[in-house]
Amino acid sequence: MNAEIIAVGSELLLGQIANTNAQFISARLAESGVNVYYHCAVGDNEERLLETFSTAEKRSDLVIITGGLGPTKDDLTKETAAKHLGCSLSYDQESLKAIEQYFIQTGVPMTENNKKQALVLEDSTVFFNFHGMAPGMLKRHHNTTYLLLPGPPREMKPMLVDQVLPYLNDQKTDRSSIHSKVMRFFGIGEADLESRIEDILSEQTNPTIAPLAEDGEVTLRVTARSSDLKEAESLVNQMVTVIEDRVGDYCYGYDQNNLLQKIILLLEQKRLTIASAESLTGGLFSSEVASIPGASSYLLGGMTVYSNEAKQSVLGVPGDLLNQYGAVSRECAEKMADQIRTKYNSDIGISFTGVAGPGDYNGIPEGTVWIGIALKNGMNSSFNLMLKGDRNFKRIRAVKHGIYALIKLLEEETGPFVVKKD
Amino acid sequence: MNAEIIAVGSELLLGQIANTNAQFISARLAESGVNVYYHCAVGDNEERLLETFSTAEKRSDLVIITGGLGPTKDDLTKETAAKHLGCSLSYDQESLKAIEQYFIQTGVPMTENNKKQALVLEDSTVFFNFHGMAPGMLKRHHNTTYLLLPGPPREMKPMLVDQVLPYLNDQKTDRSSIHSKVMRFFGIGEADLESRIEDILSEQTNPTIAPLAEDGEVTLRVTARSSDLKEAESLVNQMVTVIEDRVGDYCYGYDQNNLLQKIILLLEQKRLTIASAESLTGGLFSSEVASIPGASSYLLGGMTVYSNEAKQSVLGVPGDLLNQYGAVSRECAEKMADQIRTKYNSDIGISFTGVAGPGDYNGIPEGTVWIGIALKNGMNSSFNLMLKGDRNFKRIRAVKHGIYALIKLLEEETGPFVVKKD
Repeated sequence: MNAEIIAVGSELLLGQIANTNAQFISARLAESGVNVYYHCAVGDNEERLLETFSTAEKRSDLVIITGGLGPTKDDLTKETAAKHLGCSLSYDQESLKAIEQYFIQTGVPMTENNKKQALVLEDSTVFFNFHGMAPGMLKRHHNTTYLLLPGPPREMKPMLVDQVLPYLNDQKTDRSSIHSKVMRFFGIGEADLESRIEDILSEQTNPTIAPLAEDGEVTLRVTARSSDLKEAESLVNQMVTVIEDRVGDYCYGYDQNNLLQKIILLLEQKRLTIASAESLTGGLFSSEVASIPGASSYLLGGMTVYSNEAKQSVLGVPGDLLNQYGAVSRECAEKMADQIRTKYNSDIGISFTGVAGPGDYNGIPEGTVWIGIALKNGMNSSFNLMLKGDRNFKRIRAVKHGIYALIKLLEEETGPFVVKKD
Repeated sequence: MNAEIIAVGSELLLGQIANTNAQFISARLAESGVNVYYHCAVGDNEERLLETFSTAEKRSDLVIITGGLGPTKDDLTKETAAKHLGCSLSYDQESLKAIEQYFIQTGVPMTENNKKQALVLEDSTVFFNFHGMAPGMLKRHHNTTYLLLPGPPREMKPMLVDQVLPYLNDQKTDRSSIHSKVMRFFGIGEADLESRIEDILSEQTNPTIAPLAEDGEVTLRVTARSSDLKEAESLVNQMVTVIEDRVGDYCYGYDQNNLLQKIILLLEQKRLTIASAESLTGGLFSSEVASIPGASSYLLGGMTVYSNEAKQSVLGVPGDLLNQYGAVSRECAEKMADQIRTKYNSDIGISFTGVAGPGDYNGIPEGTVWIGIALKNGMNSSFNLMLKGDRNFKRIRAVKHGIYALIKLLEEETGPFVVKKD
């Protein structure tokens, strides 16, 4: 099956946003073994949309169209698709009800153009929008399948993953199987990782190995195809073992569980609570951990203490310590971790202090970071980093290093958090 | 002049990277008054590339092609363009010399395929690559101008800005100028905003008005063209005034300053400090504000207090209040704001408490949010929201509503923060 992705919206052609939808959809289709041969972006213009649909129909089996399903006048994807396909539009009752309900609940007056969002192509399969108003829809026409998805990524992504891909998979006649596994690495650069497995990377055709680097993390996606799913799984697992033998020390997890999900999982398994004291990171550790559903049972909370005054008066770091060692020091990081653990009465306290920049601070170079960890048993440790990059890059990296250190600590086979097996 | 941007590279179609080059080029062309009508992405495949060039030539005056100029076998943009245009390739001597020089300097042996990077289309205008090896080139063919640029953004961007755009500008016969201004709105939905200015939107051709909605914010980009820049500016300013008369209440800023930048700017102007107490938002307010350089002078810090225990023991919300009204209440929000302001001795305290979900909490519906604001003069106020969407969507929206409320408060002409003029 050959697919083509058409993004509709003048904001793309004006350069106001990047077409990240095409990237996300392409990656998911690649995992499902669907070839994507073309991406297009076109404005909210009927004539050019019709031309784009005609071109796509000639060369692609699956035409995926994102955007232009909204309530405003310049949203004309559905109307133009209906014209191209020679069909009418009708209201999807479930979506219409949800839209009306939303306006009743929020007390905002509903304008007439909001109803337009519930219109769908005649005889299409409708995908309810759980994160917005406009539903998605799929319609076959001659030998082409048209799939219309909402433009906002936070609506499109869950609809694609939770509804559309399972639907397409059910419809598949070609039963060749594909299996893939993502290996997640931290603490090693992409170039370094690749050079250590260069021979494997260049030899492999099945499974294939696709490296990807993002925000200091590197992933390897190992993908195998076979007529038999079990065989594909076995090919992937063998290759994962080979890679682990080389660079397993840096591999902290697999598949969907990134650093954040992994730490929540571990805290949950071991029933441990945590609190954070943040200077450099300004609440980013707390906010990132809190973004994971269920986090509030394990993350008791934390404090952002930028100034030395706040470190003293709010967190309780002694003024003498700050005078003697400074706020960016091993001593301060450890005391911050210890104080926050005591204040929140948590099992673990973690602290971040450093120089985000721009510029050095009191003779301490920009990029210096101290991370402290305190445990209920009195253990109190810390480590330091020297981070490069802009302000926010350093903050994100610091948080990831802190989480990675916690993961390592929680996974230790003889450390303080070993769960006794009966 | 109508332009089309073609990105060449299978990594785009596999979803390994997003087509940020198209965004960057589009934004620069929009500033120069060039209309971009299409973006395409196509793989490293001769047949599909030829088809894409033919389609582009029929509909666009300027065809910009990025990527596929590198040394490896799958880089075939130049070769395919030469085939399409019926011309040959020859070495650009300046580029060839620079490539040879690079390998001499680094001591790395030069492989034959590196020379391929210096090949350019016969009789084309060549742009030297100051940040990489493969030069860019521009060639006219019938009524179409072909522009080939390297794929890596750090090579493409400076070449476009420093060399190509000035070159195109010199060649321009149409001397029209373009000016645009972005108006930023919060607290009003896209549909509602558009319905209030529907007549203006549908009438306007110069200036044009382009709406864009993202994460609860709506922007309108007002763009005018004229033979005279002053005239274009005046057209934009007149239109901005007309729009302000209708929906100015929701407009909080212009151009680059989003909500976060605006609040920092206001705190800085009025020399006010702030601290946050976060339950629902888990440190997101603090972390977002801290992401702006210079924030640490105004954001003294904050506390994340998830549990009622932490709200009591760490923040100092009385247990009686929590028992009587619950943690998600006007009373709790106001007390949290007051306590955090006192603890950090800041000018302003802000608090966030609510039900992020999934699911209701103690009979309070998911999505209920209370935001409290406390000031040094004893003023203590709060407001509530009912937010939809997933957990993180609610958290982000809540933070934005809090910031928006602060902006309104700081901008009040007769409020507590009026700066006295001498």
